[in-house]
Amino acid sequence: MKYCSECGASVELKIPEGDNFPRFVCDTCHTIHYQNPKIVTGCLVEHDHKILLCKRAIEPRYGLWTIPAGFMENKEAVPQAAIRETWEEAHAKVTEPELYAVFSLSHISQVYIMFRAHLAEPTFSAGAESLEVRLFDESEIPWDNLAFPIVHQTLTRYFQERKTGKFAVHVANIAPLPK
Amino acid sequence: MKYCSECGASVELKIPEGDNFPRFVCDTCHTIHYQNPKIVTGCLVEHDHKILLCKRAIEPRYGLWTIPAGFMENKEAVPQAAIRETWEEAHAKVTEPELYAVFSLSHISQVYIMFRAHLAEPTFSAGAESLEVRLFDESEIPWDNLAFPIVHQTLTRYFQERKTGKFAVHVANIAPLPK
Repeated sequence: MKYCSECGASVELKIPEGDNFPRFVCDTCHTIHYQNPKIVTGCLVEHDHKILLCKRAIEPRYGLWTIPAGFMENKEAVPQAAIRETWEEAHAKVTEPELYAVFSLSHISQVYIMFRAHLAEPTFSAGAESLEVRLFDESEIPWDNLAFPIVHQTLTRYFQERKTGKFAVHVANIAPLPK
Repeated sequence: MKYCSECGASVELKIPEGDNFPRFVCDTCHTIHYQNPKIVTGCLVEHDHKILLCKRAIEPRYGLWTIPAGFMENKEAVPQAAIRETWEEAHAKVTEPELYAVFSLSHISQVYIMFRAHLAEPTFSAGAESLEVRLFDESEIPWDNLAFPIVHQTLTRYFQERKTGKFAVHVANIAPLPK
């Protein structure tokens, strides 16, 4: 951020009076520009004991497999955003998603809110941001070609719990891959 | 938003190619400015079967009672932010908060992620944004002087469940108060 989005003047990074964090502050119109984490939300979709994954048609991680998910929009509720993203990326219709995980990716200031869901109809196809959408049996999961650590974490926890038939709601911080 | 925060030129609200939502777009430097929901997080703190509430020293809802909570910051994990907010507003130290609710306030593009927690030490006092901090027995809760519908919802659900000794994780959309 270099310019004030309200008046167009230059902004300065400093800690406003009474605050504890540095913010972009406009000394011309006195707007304080807060920057906050973004929510990514989506659905771990099960059908016939298989899991729906999307092959990414966009960077980053083009060509790798992921769970349908994306940035929540203003004026949405979280489950509604997860249903929308699942539709956009996989043309898969799900109903009544159940909360499964709140994962903090603090290194990139994102919070993933993931749901478990079932296909409402047994149809799906690649959305604009996917090359391919497929159902995978547990034994077929492309573990070496998953797009993000968060996908690996979600699937690992899910398959472990599925054996027991009982699903918790997970809260964890997901570290980046070592460089 | 009127000006591009990257180059200072005027922005225009329009749907970018390949997108489904209107965004503030800069036709000079081609930055698309996404705006997303903000996360508010905090702790429903119990001690000695009582609940910790803060009397607000700031607008909106000055003088009304609330659960210690506030905007999550970049580079934080969600539970860490909830612990920080509980410290800032109530000078109350809590450890190991447990996820209690994900409430969407879609009308104001906020998501509340609330935790249950216990005091790590039996001390607390008003932070800069509180006039007073107090422990309330269930029978003493100031139901008519709560700051927000989200506070009412969280407390109502909590006291209902406490009778059973079993707490679920709640997901709901919280509507605004009727005008």
